[in-house]
Amino acid sequence: MSEPIAVAALREFWRACEARDWPGLAATLARDVVYTVPQTRERVRGRDAYVRFNAEYPGDWHLVITRLVGDERSAVSFTSFTIGEETMTGVCAVEVDDDGLLVSLEDWWPEPYEPPAGRSHLVERF
Amino acid sequence: MSEPIAVAALREFWRACEARDWPGLAATLARDVVYTVPQTRERVRGRDAYVRFNAEYPGDWHLVITRLVGDERSAVSFTSFTIGEETMTGVCAVEVDDDGLLVSLEDWWPEPYEPPAGRSHLVERF
Repeated sequence: MSEPIAVAALREFWRACEARDWPGLAATLARDVVYTVPQTRERVRGRDAYVRFNAEYPGDWHLVITRLVGDERSAVSFTSFTIGEETMTGVCAVEVDDDGLLVSLEDWWPEPYEPPAGRSHLVERF
Repeated sequence: MSEPIAVAALREFWRACEARDWPGLAATLARDVVYTVPQTRERVRGRDAYVRFNAEYPGDWHLVITRLVGDERSAVSFTSFTIGEETMTGVCAVEVDDDGLLVSLEDWWPEPYEPPAGRSHLVERF
Protein backbone atom coordinates (compact mmCIF):
# COMPACT_ATOMS: atom_id res chain seq x y z
CA MET A 1 0.00 0.00 0.00
CA SER A 2 1.60 3.25 -1.06
CA GLU A 3 1.07 6.38 1.00
CA PRO A 4 0.37 9.85 -0.35
CA ILE A 5 3.64 11.66 -1.06
CA ALA A 6 3.45 14.22 1.75
CA VAL A 7 2.51 11.53 4.28
CA ALA A 8 5.43 9.33 3.25
CA ALA A 9 7.84 12.28 3.34
CA LEU A 10 6.79 13.24 6.87
CA ARG A 11 6.99 9.62 8.06
CA GLU A 12 10.56 9.38 6.69
CA PHE A 13 11.42 12.72 8.29
CA TRP A 14 10.43 11.41 11.73
CA ARG A 15 12.22 8.09 11.16
CA ALA A 16 15.42 9.97 10.36
CA CYS A 17 15.02 12.23 13.44
CA GLU A 18 14.51 9.31 15.80
CA ALA A 19 17.48 7.46 14.22
CA ARG A 20 19.72 10.57 14.35
CA ASP A 21 20.21 9.88 10.62
CA TRP A 22 21.14 13.43 9.61
CA PRO A 23 22.02 12.65 5.96
CA GLY A 24 18.69 10.80 5.76
CA LEU A 25 16.94 13.80 7.28
CA ALA A 26 18.60 16.17 4.79
CA ALA A 27 17.37 13.93 1.96
CA THR A 28 13.73 14.64 2.93
CA LEU A 29 14.19 18.43 2.79
CA ALA A 30 14.10 20.99 -0.01
CA ARG A 31 17.20 23.19 -0.11
CA ASP A 32 15.08 26.27 0.69
CA VAL A 33 12.94 24.62 3.39
CA VAL A 34 11.40 26.96 5.95
CA TYR A 35 10.68 25.75 9.51
CA THR A 36 8.36 27.87 11.66
CA VAL A 37 7.34 27.76 15.33
CA PRO A 38 4.34 30.11 15.49
CA GLN A 39 4.12 29.99 19.30
CA THR A 40 7.63 31.41 19.75
CA ARG A 41 7.72 33.35 16.46
CA GLU A 42 10.88 31.50 15.45
CA ARG A 43 11.89 30.61 11.91
CA VAL A 44 14.77 28.56 10.49
CA ARG A 45 15.61 28.93 6.79
CA GLY A 46 17.44 26.45 4.62
CA ARG A 47 18.26 22.75 4.72
CA ASP A 48 21.66 23.03 6.34
CA ALA A 49 20.49 25.24 9.19
CA TYR A 50 17.43 23.10 9.80
CA VAL A 51 19.38 19.84 9.91
CA ARG A 52 21.71 21.48 12.46
CA PHE A 53 18.70 22.71 14.42
CA ASN A 54 17.55 19.10 14.80
CA ALA A 55 21.02 17.63 15.35
CA GLU A 56 21.75 20.18 18.10
CA TYR A 57 18.39 19.78 19.84
CA PRO A 58 19.39 19.04 23.43
CA GLY A 59 18.48 16.03 25.54
CA ASP A 60 18.02 12.32 24.93
CA TRP A 61 14.68 12.78 23.19
CA HIS A 62 12.65 10.05 21.53
CA LEU A 63 9.48 10.21 19.53
CA VAL A 64 6.68 8.06 18.20
CA ILE A 65 4.09 9.09 15.64
CA THR A 66 0.58 8.90 17.13
CA ARG A 67 -1.36 10.33 14.17
CA LEU A 68 -0.41 11.06 10.56
CA VAL A 69 -2.84 12.24 7.91
CA GLY A 70 -2.51 13.99 4.59
CA ASP A 71 -2.46 13.87 0.82
CA GLU A 72 -0.02 14.36 -2.05
CA ARG A 73 0.92 17.93 -1.05
CA SER A 74 0.23 18.42 2.66
CA ALA A 75 0.33 16.35 5.82
CA VAL A 76 -0.04 16.76 9.58
CA SER A 77 1.55 14.56 12.23
CA PHE A 78 0.99 14.23 15.95
CA THR A 79 4.04 12.86 17.75
CA SER A 80 4.60 11.89 21.35
CA PHE A 81 8.01 13.24 22.44
CA THR A 82 9.75 11.92 25.52
CA ILE A 83 12.77 13.52 27.19
CA GLY A 84 13.56 11.68 30.42
CA GLU A 85 10.37 11.63 32.52
CA GLU A 86 8.61 14.29 30.45
CA THR A 87 6.26 13.52 27.56
CA MET A 88 4.83 16.14 25.21
CA THR A 89 2.66 16.10 22.10
CA GLY A 90 4.00 17.87 19.03
CA VAL A 91 1.88 18.80 16.03
CA CYS A 92 3.66 19.33 12.71
CA ALA A 93 2.03 20.58 9.50
CA VAL A 94 4.10 20.24 6.32
CA GLU A 95 4.01 20.82 2.60
CA VAL A 96 6.10 19.18 -0.11
CA ASP A 97 7.35 20.66 -3.37
CA ASP A 98 7.05 19.15 -6.86
CA ASP A 99 9.94 16.78 -6.05
CA GLY A 100 8.20 15.47 -2.92
CA LEU A 101 10.67 17.25 -0.63
CA LEU A 102 9.53 19.01 2.53
CA VAL A 103 9.51 22.72 1.76
CA SER A 104 7.64 24.05 4.80
CA LEU A 105 7.20 22.70 8.31
CA GLU A 106 5.12 24.39 10.99
CA ASP A 107 5.63 23.03 14.50
CA TRP A 108 3.25 23.37 17.48
CA TRP A 109 3.76 22.37 21.11
CA PRO A 110 0.51 22.58 23.10
CA GLU A 111 0.93 22.60 26.90
CA PRO A 112 -1.56 21.49 29.58
CA TYR A 113 -3.85 24.20 30.97
CA GLU A 114 -6.69 24.49 33.46
CA PRO A 115 -10.20 23.90 32.07
CA PRO A 116 -12.37 27.03 31.81
CA ALA A 117 -15.21 27.41 34.30
CA GLY A 118 -18.86 26.96 33.38
CA ARG A 119 -18.88 23.76 31.39
CA SER A 120 -18.53 21.04 34.00
CA HIS A 121 -22.19 20.03 33.49
CA LEU A 122 -21.22 18.77 30.02
CA VAL A 123 -17.69 17.55 30.61
CA GLU A 124 -15.99 14.63 32.34
CA ARG A 125 -12.31 14.69 33.36
CA PHE A 126 -9.81 11.93 32.67
CA MET B 1 -13.91 18.86 -7.22
CA SER B 2 -15.09 16.58 -4.46
CA GLU B 3 -13.23 16.48 -1.17
CA PRO B 4 -12.38 13.37 0.83
CA ILE B 5 -15.23 12.49 3.20
CA ALA B 6 -13.51 13.41 6.47
CA VAL B 7 -12.30 16.73 5.03
CA ALA B 8 -15.79 17.65 3.81
CA ALA B 9 -17.34 16.67 7.16
CA LEU B 10 -14.90 18.84 9.12
CA ARG B 11 -15.41 21.78 6.74
CA GLU B 12 -19.18 21.52 7.22
CA PHE B 13 -18.71 21.23 11.00
CA TRP B 14 -16.83 24.56 11.08
CA ARG B 15 -19.35 26.22 8.74
CA ALA B 16 -22.16 25.23 11.09
CA CYS B 17 -20.23 26.47 14.15
CA GLU B 18 -19.51 29.86 12.61
CA ALA B 19 -23.17 30.14 11.47
CA ARG B 20 -24.51 29.05 14.92
CA ASP B 21 -26.44 26.47 12.88
CA TRP B 22 -26.92 23.95 15.69
CA PRO B 23 -29.19 21.55 13.76
CA GLY B 24 -26.64 21.67 10.95
CA LEU B 25 -23.86 20.98 13.44
CA ALA B 26 -25.78 18.01 14.89
CA ALA B 27 -26.15 16.61 11.37
CA THR B 28 -22.35 16.29 11.05
CA LEU B 29 -22.03 14.25 14.28
CA ALA B 30 -22.44 10.57 15.11
CA ARG B 31 -24.83 9.95 18.01
CA ASP B 32 -21.97 8.55 20.11
CA VAL B 33 -19.40 11.22 19.17
CA VAL B 34 -16.59 11.77 21.68
CA TYR B 35 -14.91 15.17 21.97
CA THR B 36 -11.59 15.34 23.82
CA VAL B 37 -9.36 18.20 24.99
CA PRO B 38 -6.09 16.47 25.91
CA GLN B 39 -4.53 19.61 27.39
CA THR B 40 -7.26 19.97 30.05
CA ARG B 41 -8.13 16.25 30.20
CA GLU B 42 -11.76 17.05 29.38
CA ARG B 43 -14.12 14.82 27.46
CA VAL B 44 -17.70 15.33 26.21
CA ARG B 45 -19.70 12.27 25.18
CA GLY B 46 -22.66 12.18 22.84
CA ARG B 47 -24.13 14.38 20.15
CA ASP B 48 -26.60 16.27 22.32
CA ALA B 49 -24.05 17.21 24.97
CA TYR B 50 -21.49 18.20 22.37
CA VAL B 51 -23.90 20.42 20.45
CA ARG B 52 -24.76 22.14 23.77
CA PHE B 53 -21.05 22.48 24.54
CA ASN B 54 -20.62 24.46 21.33
CA ALA B 55 -23.87 26.40 21.62
CA GLU B 56 -23.01 27.48 25.18
CA TYR B 57 -19.41 28.41 24.39
CA PRO B 58 -19.17 31.97 25.74
CA GLY B 59 -18.21 35.11 23.85
CA ASP B 60 -18.77 36.48 20.37
CA TRP B 61 -16.27 34.10 18.79
CA HIS B 62 -15.59 33.79 15.07
CA LEU B 63 -13.40 31.39 13.18
CA VAL B 64 -11.78 30.87 9.82
CA ILE B 65 -10.14 27.69 8.61
CA THR B 66 -6.45 28.29 7.83
CA ARG B 67 -5.46 24.71 6.98
CA LEU B 68 -7.48 21.55 6.35
CA VAL B 69 -5.98 18.24 5.28
CA GLY B 70 -7.12 14.63 5.37
CA ASP B 71 -8.54 11.61 3.64
CA GLU B 72 -11.71 9.51 3.66
CA ARG B 73 -11.46 8.62 7.38
CA SER B 74 -9.39 11.27 9.16
CA ALA B 75 -8.77 14.99 8.89
CA VAL B 76 -7.00 17.79 10.74
CA SER B 77 -7.94 21.46 10.69
CA PHE B 78 -6.15 24.58 11.83
CA THR B 79 -8.55 27.40 12.62
CA SER B 80 -7.96 31.00 13.60
CA PHE B 81 -10.38 31.88 16.43
CA THR B 82 -11.13 35.46 17.32
CA ILE B 83 -12.93 36.62 20.47
CA GLY B 84 -12.87 40.41 20.64
CA GLU B 85 -9.22 41.49 20.39
CA GLU B 86 -7.82 38.03 21.03
CA THR B 87 -6.89 35.58 18.27
CA MET B 88 -5.89 31.96 18.88
CA THR B 89 -5.06 28.99 16.70
CA GLY B 90 -7.02 25.80 17.28
CA VAL B 91 -6.00 22.40 15.96
CA CYS B 92 -8.70 19.77 15.58
CA ALA B 93 -8.12 16.12 14.60
CA VAL B 94 -11.22 14.12 13.67
CA GLU B 95 -12.36 10.73 12.47
CA VAL B 96 -15.58 9.80 10.69
CA ASP B 97 -17.58 6.59 10.93
CA ASP B 98 -18.88 4.47 8.04
CA ASP B 99 -21.70 7.00 7.50
CA GLY B 100 -19.27 9.90 7.16
CA LEU B 101 -20.31 11.34 10.52
CA LEU B 102 -17.77 12.77 12.95
CA VAL B 103 -17.27 10.17 15.66
CA SER B 104 -14.20 11.58 17.40
CA LEU B 105 -12.81 15.09 17.69
CA GLU B 106 -9.60 15.98 19.51
CA ASP B 107 -9.07 19.68 20.12
CA TRP B 108 -5.77 21.44 20.84
CA TRP B 109 -5.12 25.07 21.82
CA PRO B 110 -1.40 25.93 21.68
CA GLU B 111 -0.40 29.12 23.52
CA PRO B 112 2.59 31.39 22.88
CA TYR B 113 5.73 30.62 24.89
CA GLU B 114 9.28 31.93 25.19
CA PRO B 115 11.86 30.37 22.83
CA PRO B 116 14.37 28.05 24.50
CA ALA B 117 17.93 29.31 24.88
CA GLY B 118 20.82 28.05 22.79
CA ARG B 119 19.48 28.10 19.27
CA SER B 120 19.54 31.77 18.31
CA HIS B 121 22.48 31.12 15.94
CA LEU B 122 20.06 29.14 13.71
CA VAL B 123 16.82 31.00 14.26
CA GLU B 124 15.30 34.32 13.22
CA ARG B 125 12.35 35.88 15.06
CA PHE B 126 9.24 37.30 13.42
